[in-house]
Amino acid sequence: MGNNNIDDAAIKYDTSLSADIVIFTVHEDELKVLLVNRAHDPFKDHWALPGGFRKIGIDKSLIDIANRRLVEETGAKANYLEQLYTFGDEKRDPRGWVTSVAYFALMPYDKVDLIAGDGVSETKWKSVQNRVPRKLAFDHGDIIKMALSRIQAKLEYSPIAAHLLGNEFTLPDMMAVYELIMGCKLDKTFFRRSIKKADFLIDTGKKSDKGFKKAVLYKMKKGVEKSLFFPRGLYARN
Amino acid sequence: MGNNNIDDAAIKYDTSLSADIVIFTVHEDELKVLLVNRAHDPFKDHWALPGGFRKIGIDKSLIDIANRRLVEETGAKANYLEQLYTFGDEKRDPRGWVTSVAYFALMPYDKVDLIAGDGVSETKWKSVQNRVPRKLAFDHGDIIKMALSRIQAKLEYSPIAAHLLGNEFTLPDMMAVYELIMGCKLDKTFFRRSIKKADFLIDTGKKSDKGFKKAVLYKMKKGVEKSLFFPRGLYARN
Repeated sequence: MGNNNIDDAAIKYDTSLSADIVIFTVHEDELKVLLVNRAHDPFKDHWALPGGFRKIGIDKSLIDIANRRLVEETGAKANYLEQLYTFGDEKRDPRGWVTSVAYFALMPYDKVDLIAGDGVSETKWKSVQNRVPRKLAFDHGDIIKMALSRIQAKLEYSPIAAHLLGNEFTLPDMMAVYELIMGCKLDKTFFRRSIKKADFLIDTGKKSDKGFKKAVLYKMKKGVEKSLFFPRGLYARN
Repeated sequence: MGNNNIDDAAIKYDTSLSADIVIFTVHEDELKVLLVNRAHDPFKDHWALPGGFRKIGIDKSLIDIANRRLVEETGAKANYLEQLYTFGDEKRDPRGWVTSVAYFALMPYDKVDLIAGDGVSETKWKSVQNRVPRKLAFDHGDIIKMALSRIQAKLEYSPIAAHLLGNEFTLPDMMAVYELIMGCKLDKTFFRRSIKKADFLIDTGKKSDKGFKKAVLYKMKKGVEKSLFFPRGLYARN
């Protein structure tokens, strides 16, 4: 949650409802999350997720709060935010009951130009490769942990990792992203077989000029990038 | 959402936050959802999901709202409610912005003694076997559709259907529940192979006395009933 100073007297905030946004990227072989340093109390000078209260009459729906606060605080503009979970109780915010609807997305590092925006003294990608940063504001550490579990689970049935790759990529590129998110080494043969079975890649006919062995460049099948969920069809349907 | 009359002047409601609850069961070979007929406006005399506003100072967290309203309106007491999704915008409720956190669960038909409780003129299991009932209050039709998609997806990676079965059941019993939820016929051989692979059943050594061929009675492995999520471990971990 960010700045809740009201500079325009006509604009009112609903201070019982907020959105918080978990943006992950991969940079320098590490999985990182986008955090802001809070310029105001509560939790002044603490790292927190970007987010903030609903602007009454301005935000037409929950996702509007998330998209607006993400841009206002960090400069990042997400193509697609997915709802993660909603947190709400008497204790998570010292100011009283706040319901926070959390969203998440994966974004390529070089597509984001960070700013220290509204209510924020610093905006930074922080590594979550080995552990989630400690002493975050509110329950934001728990929110990040849940978002991590969710993307790890989604890797098994969706092409979510493609959001971190360029338009064209090799299977080793893709496996590296999977390994960073899963936090473990994968079996190369098994990985290739699983990806092939999932059937969402197209061979571009080109080869990468990186590395010793020239690997095939793939791209995502059309439409697949947008659908973050596609069941693998375990069941025979009549 | 239910009755928002306040009979005790000391108790206040937060009328911008509600919980709605989607309870499914299987009865007479049909998948059914628990609905209430609203005794008050808005949407008086319309069928709706059980639910209602946060009672300030009484509900300590979001799940408290859901558990309290489910019992107050319908008499049903859920062992475990899972958060589905959060709906919130300016238009879904004629009274103004309401954020509704939706929960869902599967319950055995004979474990629920229905009442027409607080703010409700009638409580009923309504079939969703062929289609979701029309003209429901608010956006409750959309909420039910999302809950249906979620349990259909969960069938592929969790023993969620076990919540609808007794302590001991045959594979044909289990397949019947899967077919009702999926809304399609399954391949018997493929179903048996998938269930075996998922490895969450124990052979009780007993046989069912129903039907022509005496089928083996199974029970869930200990602990499995509680975990509504277990990834199938597609990836090799080091």
